[in-house]
Amino acid sequence: MAGNTIGKIFRLTSFGESHGTAVGGVVDGCPSGLDFDVEFIQNEVNRRKTGSSPAASGRIEEDKVEILSGVFEGKTTGTPIAFLIKNKDAHSEDYENLKDVYRPSHADFTYEKKYGIRDYRGGGRASARETVVRIVGGAIAKLILFQKGIEILAFVAQIGTVKIENEIEKLSFNTVENSEVRCPDPEASEKMIKLIEDLKEEGDSTGGIVTCLINDCPAGIGEPVFDKLHADLGKAMLSINAVKGFEYGLGFESAAMKASVINDVFEYIDGEIVTKTNYSGGIQGGISNGSVIYFNVAFKPVPTISLEQNTVDKNGKPIKLKAEGRHDICVVPRAVPIVEAMAALVLVDHYLRE
Amino acid sequence: MAGNTIGKIFRLTSFGESHGTAVGGVVDGCPSGLDFDVEFIQNEVNRRKTGSSPAASGRIEEDKVEILSGVFEGKTTGTPIAFLIKNKDAHSEDYENLKDVYRPSHADFTYEKKYGIRDYRGGGRASARETVVRIVGGAIAKLILFQKGIEILAFVAQIGTVKIENEIEKLSFNTVENSEVRCPDPEASEKMIKLIEDLKEEGDSTGGIVTCLINDCPAGIGEPVFDKLHADLGKAMLSINAVKGFEYGLGFESAAMKASVINDVFEYIDGEIVTKTNYSGGIQGGISNGSVIYFNVAFKPVPTISLEQNTVDKNGKPIKLKAEGRHDICVVPRAVPIVEAMAALVLVDHYLRE
Amino acid sequence: MAGNTIGKIFRLTSFGESHGTAVGGVVDGCPSGLDFDVEFIQNEVNRRKTGSSPAASGRIEEDKVEILSGVFEGKTTGTPIAFLIKNKDAHSEDYENLKDVYRPSHADFTYEKKYGIRDYRGGGRASARETVVRIVGGAIAKLILFQKGIEILAFVAQIGTVKIENEIEKLSFNTVENSEVRCPDPEASEKMIKLIEDLKEEGDSTGGIVTCLINDCPAGIGEPVFDKLHADLGKAMLSINAVKGFEYGLGFESAAMKASVINDVFEYIDGEIVTKTNYSGGIQGGISNGSVIYFNVAFKPVPTISLEQNTVDKNGKPIKLKAEGRHDICVVPRAVPIVEAMAALVLVDHYLRE
Amino acid sequence: MAGNTIGKIFRLTSFGESHGTAVGGVVDGCPSGLDFDVEFIQNEVNRRKTGSSPAASGRIEEDKVEILSGVFEGKTTGTPIAFLIKNKDAHSEDYENLKDVYRPSHADFTYEKKYGIRDYRGGGRASARETVVRIVGGAIAKLILFQKGIEILAFVAQIGTVKIENEIEKLSFNTVENSEVRCPDPEASEKMIKLIEDLKEEGDSTGGIVTCLINDCPAGIGEPVFDKLHADLGKAMLSINAVKGFEYGLGFESAAMKASVINDVFEYIDGEIVTKTNYSGGIQGGISNGSVIYFNVAFKPVPTISLEQNTVDKNGKPIKLKAEGRHDICVVPRAVPIVEAMAALVLVDHYLRE
Repeated sequence: MAGNTIGKIFRLTSFGESHGTAVGGVVDGCPSGLDFDVEFIQNEVNRRKTGSSPAASGRIEEDKVEILSGVFEGKTTGTPIAFLIKNKDAHSEDYENLKDVYRPSHADFTYEKKYGIRDYRGGGRASARETVVRIVGGAIAKLILFQKGIEILAFVAQIGTVKIENEIEKLSFNTVENSEVRCPDPEASEKMIKLIEDLKEEGDSTGGIVTCLINDCPAGIGEPVFDKLHADLGKAMLSINAVKGFEYGLGFESAAMKASVINDVFEYIDGEIVTKTNYSGGIQGGISNGSVIYFNVAFKPVPTISLEQNTVDKNGKPIKLKAEGRHDICVVPRAVPIVEAMAALVLVDHYLRE
Repeated sequence: MAGNTIGKIFRLTSFGESHGTAVGGVVDGCPSGLDFDVEFIQNEVNRRKTGSSPAASGRIEEDKVEILSGVFEGKTTGTPIAFLIKNKDAHSEDYENLKDVYRPSHADFTYEKKYGIRDYRGGGRASARETVVRIVGGAIAKLILFQKGIEILAFVAQIGTVKIENEIEKLSFNTVENSEVRCPDPEASEKMIKLIEDLKEEGDSTGGIVTCLINDCPAGIGEPVFDKLHADLGKAMLSINAVKGFEYGLGFESAAMKASVINDVFEYIDGEIVTKTNYSGGIQGGISNGSVIYFNVAFKPVPTISLEQNTVDKNGKPIKLKAEGRHDICVVPRAVPIVEAMAALVLVDHYLRE
Repeated sequence: MAGNTIGKIFRLTSFGESHGTAVGGVVDGCPSGLDFDVEFIQNEVNRRKTGSSPAASGRIEEDKVEILSGVFEGKTTGTPIAFLIKNKDAHSEDYENLKDVYRPSHADFTYEKKYGIRDYRGGGRASARETVVRIVGGAIAKLILFQKGIEILAFVAQIGTVKIENEIEKLSFNTVENSEVRCPDPEASEKMIKLIEDLKEEGDSTGGIVTCLINDCPAGIGEPVFDKLHADLGKAMLSINAVKGFEYGLGFESAAMKASVINDVFEYIDGEIVTKTNYSGGIQGGISNGSVIYFNVAFKPVPTISLEQNTVDKNGKPIKLKAEGRHDICVVPRAVPIVEAMAALVLVDHYLRE
Repeated sequence: MAGNTIGKIFRLTSFGESHGTAVGGVVDGCPSGLDFDVEFIQNEVNRRKTGSSPAASGRIEEDKVEILSGVFEGKTTGTPIAFLIKNKDAHSEDYENLKDVYRPSHADFTYEKKYGIRDYRGGGRASARETVVRIVGGAIAKLILFQKGIEILAFVAQIGTVKIENEIEKLSFNTVENSEVRCPDPEASEKMIKLIEDLKEEGDSTGGIVTCLINDCPAGIGEPVFDKLHADLGKAMLSINAVKGFEYGLGFESAAMKASVINDVFEYIDGEIVTKTNYSGGIQGGISNGSVIYFNVAFKPVPTISLEQNTVDKNGKPIKLKAEGRHDICVVPRAVPIVEAMAALVLVDHYLRE
């Protein structure tokens, strides 16, 4: 059973290869009567573009979203919403020389082991180009969440060795999109940009961490046992290209702590039962408790670099590999809207499961 | 849509409350003709028992697995395998006083928000007692994996502030079960036991980290896009009670590293294409590459402690709470077979999806 | 992927063999707070018993339903409801001689082809004993439907060559359970009983047709395209042992008719839009329209008969076969509660999908 | 949970409205390395066209299938195969007058009840135009089945009151496509054409029955209990627009018969165990037995007719309705490839579940 669909009630099925005709998807299970804000969806897609990243070349891909079904007179009808984004004429011939080569830490080798065949052009199905489909699905999910007053906000917390040092409470999140690296801390932001410039010079790449906040999620969302809300969030994040880790609340840090320190005790404030602290990250037993949900997502460095690397081709012949032309030094700023989109997909699905 | 089933081909449906008649499950999709080793399954269940944990009271629960269907003359028939473990007469009256209380960092509050009703006895459905069901399902999965030569091995890498300091290559994993805390490093093991004893004295609890290795998994297992092998492993781990984080390969560490350092370059050795290093953790693009799969799972401290804590009841009335009697100081050693079981469930499901 | 689960939101997973320890099931997705009427459920199970059938031996099996989880203080908690019915000590040795024999028009041969192994005792998993699980699941579903005012009522419309001749409008459905063959038409009922007695004498068996009505189902239930309400009803009915056909509304008869005759024209009566006739059977485009839903289910004769039959064993050796002892002459009266149960399962699932 | 996906391993997700931009689908789970015969797929689509029906106008729609993904250098890659068929400029303004009208025995009323909104142009999502998506999915499924030597063949057995009178064994099925009404019996075929011409004159429409044969399906395909092979076939057929009934083997006829007459006894012929007769229709206990699988599908008359009909609009105002221009007198000949396509989808899914 192939894995190109996510969600149980609000379901996104994704299709498309990097250098095929188009990438796209089908959203099944979107409620009817929703105002379908095409402009918002297109803007979300634009946030992911190459041109939006700092050290990027400025090349602007069009990435125009075409809606094929499920919307009538500006509203959703409850039927499947299909959409596609055409792939531009993408110099596939540039990839001829990679046809038989297994690039280090890419999926070339494993796809070939699994399928016996692969569309080698630009990474084919394994390309991060597929994430644009998630952005569209997530944008539709966000339209529903907005109606419920739920807000999802992600930002860059770390790039390479540079982390936000200031306390998170002191940061102003409405500045995230102003930062070239989508980091709300101006000092860290500056250092990150410097780091990326240095790495560009070196021909290397690095990873980073995206933090995501979900505000105003009501209590009671999520399922016990296997489909815990944070388990589905974790799976969704880990399904993003280059992600190596997920933690929510105090995460890995909590392993070293004592319950007496990090238990979130309940209080009764203004007629409402709330937790005094939120070390848990807004989820207890897999179900939201009404506090802010927050989690971190760790990205490894993109494996494509300009430095020469050793590898082999499918016959085992040693090959020297060196990426020509443009490639991302650090995908993490561009990953911010993808993290948000995946969070929105999971949340709306759990919301509608209620 | 409730979340009590895991897997797509090999499916485990779990049921039962801590103080109800029984906990149990149904495995649907197990291949026919498998030698059904009841003793092995019971042994796996025994590994999870209270008595197996170091600072535990030595009380031995029986936890006898009863098989109700799907097995005939010692072999699986391809039909659903139902099983149950009866709950012992479990002093439910001890919980009367917790009926209206929301224990800090437990699921009492969120269950009530979601369902409007809850079986408050011993945590009900949210109790870690449910994990015994996973052990049984995972043990059946292991029987299949053994046949394929795949081995799953987990151990404790950290308890509270004590970590394994020795290099992992120098550890002997067949000693894991000899350690009272399931830590293969004798020095760390000793310190962990000491730490637990101190915490017991204090009346507090702490968390920890379990590392899991999957050896001899062939290349080609896993699905691209949403059902990546590590995404399903992550979800399965995050669904275990008290888990706060998951990382595979270099995990969070990779965020700070350079691709030139951690790319796994391919080599041709003895007629086979292999990676020189395994920073990726045995998975590329969501599909196994034939190397060892490894990952870490972070557990928070169990929230039930003997120290007095503040909380409120359902009417908002302040309550002083103090756990009486036995409770775990650190669940992490007992979580080792649970981590293995969940890994086995995910792996066998992906294996059969091929 | 094995097929022992039905439903998407309200899901019943069934397990158990005819002569194993128990048959049973797990209902996942039942809403919380439902009054769990155990007596009603047991009564539904009793309706299916051998003793309830006319020409049956009067042997009363106990078939006591045991609830293992999901119910607390008389109400559902929203967690999985597991239940089982123990199999009585069932003279399994009687089946030793059938171990290698393929009974005509039974599933012995196909199970062996599929699984390479089978529990041959009493038909194993293929036995109609499994339907008691459906009754329990359906009874829980009925409890929900009752709350919504939806009523499901099935009856025997044909046994062998005897059909109800009177107009359906003239029948009184509250007499169904009074008829030994669950036929609301007293004349037909009498003839059916006579027919069964004759067949018993002959040592033969026959089939029949069950008609089912769903009253007061609101408009708007069902999904377009693949999961049309009648498509799911059809699948559910066809999954019952011995069922060979399903039709709704005018069914097969409509093939020969003209649209001008059987189109259901709309009228405006007392402030409501209704159809003048109901040839469609209460469903348009896969979605209920508020009229009575009705359908027919055709059963073949049970293949086990006292007459001698030729067959072969697994080695191809010719065998003379002759059923000893009790067996049903016609299962159709006992199938009435099963048809109702399956209808309830489908309906409640679609209701909750809304 | 919306119902626009069919299949568990080989999954078709369908999208599109009659007068939207396009209809199309995504096939997920198609094995890699399959020769992707685009011409065959297009031919299957052409079989469904208006122009292929007897009494039709001869207008040829283009219905060109565009493949967007999942195919590389003429072979499937194992990734999702997305496709679309653009809707021609379809005089949507013709439907303005139907905007508020509920056409008798159409889905206008029920869609509005369910969704509160509907794309009224040409039936929107409820239009039989959606079935072209099934043809494409089914054609891909057929490519797989061909490799396994499995053949699916459907034909018209009845139109209105005209049935095939000759014995089925005497018919030559390779003539099906030569008949304007896809009936392999030349005499019946002629009478059917005459009947359709008469109905055209009258301005009325009629229904019919399609019979489908599946040849050379190996034994062992299908799942016990809920996902019986014939149950999934039944659901798939009942999901086709205008279908009112499904039966397999002797179907409804078997209700009146005796087991002694219709039991399929086993024989040992040429070293193989086979059934002497095939009244069961090639399936026992939900699993194929190696004999020919056959079933009947009943279609009601299309409700759109040129005769004037009464109905009401959404405000309850009486309306006189009369279809202008072209419409099908009998869809049954055009439904033949749709029945085949749905059978192929079900069969390949069950085949891959093995």
